[in-house]
Amino acid sequence: MKAVRIVKPDDLQIVDMEKPVITDELNVLVKVTASGICGSDVGIYHGTNAAATYPRVIGHEIVGVVEEIGEGVTRVKPGDRVIIDQVTACGHCYACRKERPNVCGTLKVKGVHIDGGYREYIAVNASDCYLLPDSLSDQDAVMIEPTTIAVQCCSRARLESEDTVLLIGAGALGNSILKIVKLYAPKKIIVADIDDSKLEEALKAGATDVVNSRKEDLPARCHELTDGYGVTVSIDAACVKGSLLSALNATGNAGRVITMGFSVASDEINQFVITSKELDVRGSRLQNGKFQTVIDLVNEGKIDLNGSVSHTYHFLDAQKAFDFVDSRDPSIRKIVLTFEER
Amino acid sequence: MKAVRIVKPDDLQIVDMEKPVITDELNVLVKVTASGICGSDVGIYHGTNAAATYPRVIGHEIVGVVEEIGEGVTRVKPGDRVIIDQVTACGHCYACRKERPNVCGTLKVKGVHIDGGYREYIAVNASDCYLLPDSLSDQDAVMIEPTTIAVQCCSRARLESEDTVLLIGAGALGNSILKIVKLYAPKKIIVADIDDSKLEEALKAGATDVVNSRKEDLPARCHELTDGYGVTVSIDAACVKGSLLSALNATGNAGRVITMGFSVASDEINQFVITSKELDVRGSRLQNGKFQTVIDLVNEGKIDLNGSVSHTYHFLDAQKAFDFVDSRDPSIRKIVLTFEER
Repeated sequence: MKAVRIVKPDDLQIVDMEKPVITDELNVLVKVTASGICGSDVGIYHGTNAAATYPRVIGHEIVGVVEEIGEGVTRVKPGDRVIIDQVTACGHCYACRKERPNVCGTLKVKGVHIDGGYREYIAVNASDCYLLPDSLSDQDAVMIEPTTIAVQCCSRARLESEDTVLLIGAGALGNSILKIVKLYAPKKIIVADIDDSKLEEALKAGATDVVNSRKEDLPARCHELTDGYGVTVSIDAACVKGSLLSALNATGNAGRVITMGFSVASDEINQFVITSKELDVRGSRLQNGKFQTVIDLVNEGKIDLNGSVSHTYHFLDAQKAFDFVDSRDPSIRKIVLTFEER
Repeated sequence: MKAVRIVKPDDLQIVDMEKPVITDELNVLVKVTASGICGSDVGIYHGTNAAATYPRVIGHEIVGVVEEIGEGVTRVKPGDRVIIDQVTACGHCYACRKERPNVCGTLKVKGVHIDGGYREYIAVNASDCYLLPDSLSDQDAVMIEPTTIAVQCCSRARLESEDTVLLIGAGALGNSILKIVKLYAPKKIIVADIDDSKLEEALKAGATDVVNSRKEDLPARCHELTDGYGVTVSIDAACVKGSLLSALNATGNAGRVITMGFSVASDEINQFVITSKELDVRGSRLQNGKFQTVIDLVNEGKIDLNGSVSHTYHFLDAQKAFDFVDSRDPSIRKIVLTFEER
């Protein structure tokens, strides 16, 4: 079978791999039908994601059809359309004991530490498989994974209706988060980006205010929009140099700042901004048992994951897809790799 | 009356001030008998504390004797020995509504935003007065205030017995925190400092391990001492350049990092270290209703605040006291200004 492998940073190759066979542990064989491109995949490709190891078959937004199951598997059956949980945890370290397997001390993430979904077949444990809602195509179902990330970050932020929220970044991740933030009905949802067309979309999608952070001083504008207090929650879904500092400065006393970035580009952070406001700066990584939560929200009609995919590329054209991502074309929302026969 | 005023950074003057008179709001007149020197006072003196405004009578560890009370005051009576809560909050902003008046949006801290305790008399509201335990001299009672800060930081860390704790800084603040950390009986208490004699004292005071962070790589040593995982809680009571970064790197997945620093000296922080471990980086500022907690702990015999004061200076010799602090003499633990008649 064929796979997309990042051999080393900035070196993407289409390679031949052995088709996986099921084992006692990896007891479900899934034929991949759609794999999303996430910002962190781009980071691994360019060598800016400090968690990744190389060479690596990337891709962690993995949708497919069950092709074969091992003995005793009842959770899924051949023909089921599924999305795959990317997290594998040890179950006994401090984080696991605290019911936070997403940051297990020996965490293995598909597409980061072990091979992921940019390949024709993947063998996984049955417990990692979640049945897709009938209402979603395979390509749109890719959005379940980033939505679990959004649910996780709102959970880390302990969002509530009294909050005023700043969401930095109106790209694919930001859009996913906006959908979830809205469910908490906060007083304000201020979305910031450097692209006016993305901000227009954010307004249509439920933002109460938008700020072009290239044209305006974001922390100052957030204070203006909140009677001088600052927002009570900042979510950094841009994760670029300077965005953490902006989030810290935009947030008022006793507020929470959620980081989602994997970049090792540093910001100059002083303790004063954290201590003086008694901020909680909380990392939000992956997700902690949130797949079924998202699937339930879709099935209950509370969120709609259709319409977020802006472009598709056949996985054998992955290089073109990543080059297009690098073009920073403003039309990009979610790009999905497809696996149909050629 | 006389007062110690920081006119501008690095300019300490003994000045004459009007003796305060009690009002409806400031309905208790206290004759100050002892005022501690805290690291943040030193920061205000040197202009490195970004919260302070000038000119300022500093000092927020304020012990004295009630001299006069206003009409209707029942909480204290003339002759009572008291310590003064430094916090004044509005009661209705977001932080106050969340029961965190210590970071009120219009917070006024005695000795920082309004004049503090380095003066012969201070008028305060009765609700800011707490009766001293009989077991403590006025000078030793100064330690109640830093102990409230220690209780606050352990509360912010949500310490529990399963934790392994790194405490950076074995000075006055670190010693206060160590006393409180011990009450939670965590698995390990690793104390770090750059002064071996302070580390020896920390071992005697209950640290399970000590690290001289000038001689050893602190994060690496913390990982060694915790079977490779990293500590689950880091408390930065040193608050110097580099200490936040050390704390972030020493802490394992799902851990908490408590910042207490007011310095605007920056560390180069990248989001990766926070996101990848899903750390909670929490500021801890002042204290939130913790004076009575500490006084109860003293009265119950659970903590002993005697013996922490290493030096006293008459308040009119404050310049000498601050010069001595600047000498970084290793014998310094807590320095107290006294106010006896000359």
